Amino acid sequence: MPANRITHPRAAHGADHGLFTLGEPVTAWTVSTALPVTYEVAFTPQVLSPANPALAQAGGHPGRRLVVVDSHVHELFGDRIHGYFEARGLEHRICVLPAHEQVKTMDSVFRVAEQMDRFGISRRGEPVIAMGGGVLMDVVGLACSLYRRSTPFVRVPTTLIGLVDAGVGAKTGVNFGPHKNRLGTYHPATATLLDPSFLATLDPRHLSNGLAEILKIALIKDRRLFDLLEQRGEALIEQRFQGPAAGGEVLVRAVHGMLQELQPNLWEHRLERSMDYGHSFSPTVEMRALPELLHGEAVCVDMALTTVLAQRRGLVEPGQRDRILALMRTLRLPLWHPLMEPETLGDALTDTIRHRDGRQRLPLPVGIGGGCFADDLTADELGDSADELRELACVTQ
Amino acid sequence: MPANRITHPRAAHGADHGLFTLGEPVTAWTVSTALPVTYEVAFTPQVLSPANPALAQAGGHPGRRLVVVDSHVHELFGDRIHGYFEARGLEHRICVLPAHEQVKTMDSVFRVAEQMDRFGISRRGEPVIAMGGGVLMDVVGLACSLYRRSTPFVRVPTTLIGLVDAGVGAKTGVNFGPHKNRLGTYHPATATLLDPSFLATLDPRHLSNGLAEILKIALIKDRRLFDLLEQRGEALIEQRFQGPAAGGEVLVRAVHGMLQELQPNLWEHRLERSMDYGHSFSPTVEMRALPELLHGEAVCVDMALTTVLAQRRGLVEPGQRDRILALMRTLRLPLWHPLMEPETLGDALTDTIRHRDGRQRLPLPVGIGGGCFADDLTADELGDSADELRELACVTQ
Ligand SMILES: NC(=O)c1ccc[n+]([C@@H]2O[C@H](COP(=O)([O-])OP(=O)(O)OC[C@H]3O[C@@H](n4cnc5c(N)ncnc54)[C@H](O)[C@@H]3O)[C@@H](O)[C@H]2O)c1
Ligand SMILES: NC(=O)c1ccc[n+]([C@@H]2O[C@H](COP(=O)([O-])OP(=O)(O)OC[C@H]3O[C@@H](n4cnc5c(N)ncnc54)[C@H](O)[C@@H]3O)[C@@H](O)[C@H]2O)c1
Repeated sequence: MPANRITHPRAAHGADHGLFTLGEPVTAWTVSTALPVTYEVAFTPQVLSPANPALAQAGGHPGRRLVVVDSHVHELFGDRIHGYFEARGLEHRICVLPAHEQVKTMDSVFRVAEQMDRFGISRRGEPVIAMGGGVLMDVVGLACSLYRRSTPFVRVPTTLIGLVDAGVGAKTGVNFGPHKNRLGTYHPATATLLDPSFLATLDPRHLSNGLAEILKIALIKDRRLFDLLEQRGEALIEQRFQGPAAGGEVLVRAVHGMLQELQPNLWEHRLERSMDYGHSFSPTVEMRALPELLHGEAVCVDMALTTVLAQRRGLVEPGQRDRILALMRTLRLPLWHPLMEPETLGDALTDTIRHRDGRQRLPLPVGIGGGCFADDLTADELGDSADELRELACVTQ
Repeated sequence: MPANRITHPRAAHGADHGLFTLGEPVTAWTVSTALPVTYEVAFTPQVLSPANPALAQAGGHPGRRLVVVDSHVHELFGDRIHGYFEARGLEHRICVLPAHEQVKTMDSVFRVAEQMDRFGISRRGEPVIAMGGGVLMDVVGLACSLYRRSTPFVRVPTTLIGLVDAGVGAKTGVNFGPHKNRLGTYHPATATLLDPSFLATLDPRHLSNGLAEILKIALIKDRRLFDLLEQRGEALIEQRFQGPAAGGEVLVRAVHGMLQELQPNLWEHRLERSMDYGHSFSPTVEMRALPELLHGEAVCVDMALTTVLAQRRGLVEPGQRDRILALMRTLRLPLWHPLMEPETLGDALTDTIRHRDGRQRLPLPVGIGGGCFADDLTADELGDSADELRELACVTQ
């Protein structure tokens, strides 16, 4: 950590403790400091087995626990969750929260904050446990971030997007007005416990949805992961990541790739982010299509569009483009959506430029497993790429 | 900054890039990094004079500005504010926001976020300017903190509390349910410009209110400031910090003392905070008395109570206690409030213990200009101190 300091640019002659004893008084200060952040992400099989102390110990403090659980997850795993805390003798309260994209709002954040209030949660010693998908974790994370200006929490993701993306980074957020994740903070959970056995009950469409974020990592930085998805993707969906196709390597590579990108840029000071691949047009498309498109589906149509665009620029070969689009189909993901017309794409780009502080900083794939950033996209090129994608998507669908 | 790193506790044999080539696969990660924070606080006389470039340049980026102004301040200074930005040729929009304790809510934060949306604010390049008292700055600060997970802003405080306290730290916040500042973040303004000439229009009661926070600093760490308040406090109120009594030294000492305490502990990792003096019982008293007591008034009755308590413990001499209570009167601050009865004080202490993570960590004055922390306050001692204060406050009032 840098030396904490207050400096006084206008007080070359003034001693610190005798503000008015020598020379001119100090009337300007620069405050300079740093917030250290450390958090753990660990695969933790059998996280709900009473024999496994990991969840009870996560966050490091003995004591009470407020457990906020996605309502679907509670239907499916409620008994085991209750049983776990009972068996471990941990005083706790379980709070069930409906969690899906349309209730990803500040009202849900308020509900969690009210529960924290009623529970009388302590400021540092009683981490809230968030169990659910990306929506539940983003909402609980924001509530914890705001409550007393930050209360610790622990994440147990139960969806594929949660396991490889929403559960491993630092971002929290809710939708606001027509905008995706417009209000939020950076507030990573002290610990995230990854247990793929939750995927056994997940709807296949939500598996595909998570595979879109894994495909993103494969496309932009991990060719081996792309090969694995080609080889095993279909089986992984069918076996819900439980069977002999063994999601292990796919999941671990995805998490590792994600953390490699996030860690040196946790607060997004650098706005060229390869993890933004697939997230340039999708936020606007996803919100306008709501509830039709899932998050990963919107990301996938964005990736399909930018793959075609990259091929037109010579960054991706035609054969590679076809392999990519074919893999999207294998993963049961959409390649196209009617909202990919000039007006929506134009609005999306305008908002993304604001989000990237005045420049496009558009991540594009280079071959399979590499990427670059572009700043020179035109409306015409975008329209032509969308037209070409529409044809490719229809012809071969 | 520490070296950013991801470490793999379970992967002693695994090479970083060949996750699956050697030994066991990596399945646990520790992310470790730090957020650097730097901000400026500077006395800036004549901040609205068109000849003064400071406000136009604050935040460092040329471009457009969204200026959020407290509605009272807009009534009084609206023309000069418009005139300033016109004269400097800065594209801007002025947004007028009612700001007082009862609208210190998330709804006000949403109003600001909507304005940011309509303005189409860029992510980093267009700092929002917040002009007003503590409420306005806390609300705008929270909106900026949440919008796109952080947008820069600049503060121009227009009240005494704003100048010496709300404007110089890192905290943002709003009230939630019955609780003071229950939701908030740490998000300092890139720059704060302090211009005491705004105080010329401030209601004397709000001057006293700000003097309570200055008295806090004096009592707990700056004996010279206490002497100055005794000598000049009355004149400062009468001349509204404009006349020959020259608030200069008082204001500068207050800001300097505050920054000295905040800077090494900006995120309040250390919960023994001398700046919490007067803030142990006051949050509950202030909220229950709303709108009767102002923030600084509630802080003052808390300080009066703990001064008496400290005298009973032998930390403060009877003569010092009497000087302190007399100065409070000189500054036209209340010493007592009927809510200082056992039930409210008990509730307040319970909530404060939660806020201080399970311990009282009660700042107490030692003499005049020094302080310590206590963990052993009992309900009886609190009740007896309150009884004694009531008598002292009535007898000599
Ligand atoms: N914070 C981040 O860094 C980040 C990263 C990626 C995505 N996200 C956000 O995550 C959200 C998408 O996450 P998601 O796909 O998990 O959506 P989700 O949270 O809406 O979950 C999808 C559905 O699955 C249900 N569900 C959850 N676990 C289940 C289980 N084990 N079995 C059966 N059903 C289960 C949920 O109730 C929900 O209906 C989006 O809002 C996106 O913005 C955040
Ligand atoms: N963030 C922090 O670190 C911090 C520190 C201390 C206090 N606070 C918060 O600040 C708030 C109190 O601040 P405050 O005392 O400035 O209250 P305030 O913002 O409510 O302002 C007091 C009144 O003065 C009016 N006003 C503002 N400037 C004026 C001017 N120049 N002339 C005439 N009228 C003017 C306002 O409209 C308001 O009616 C509390 O909510 C408190 O919690 C925050």
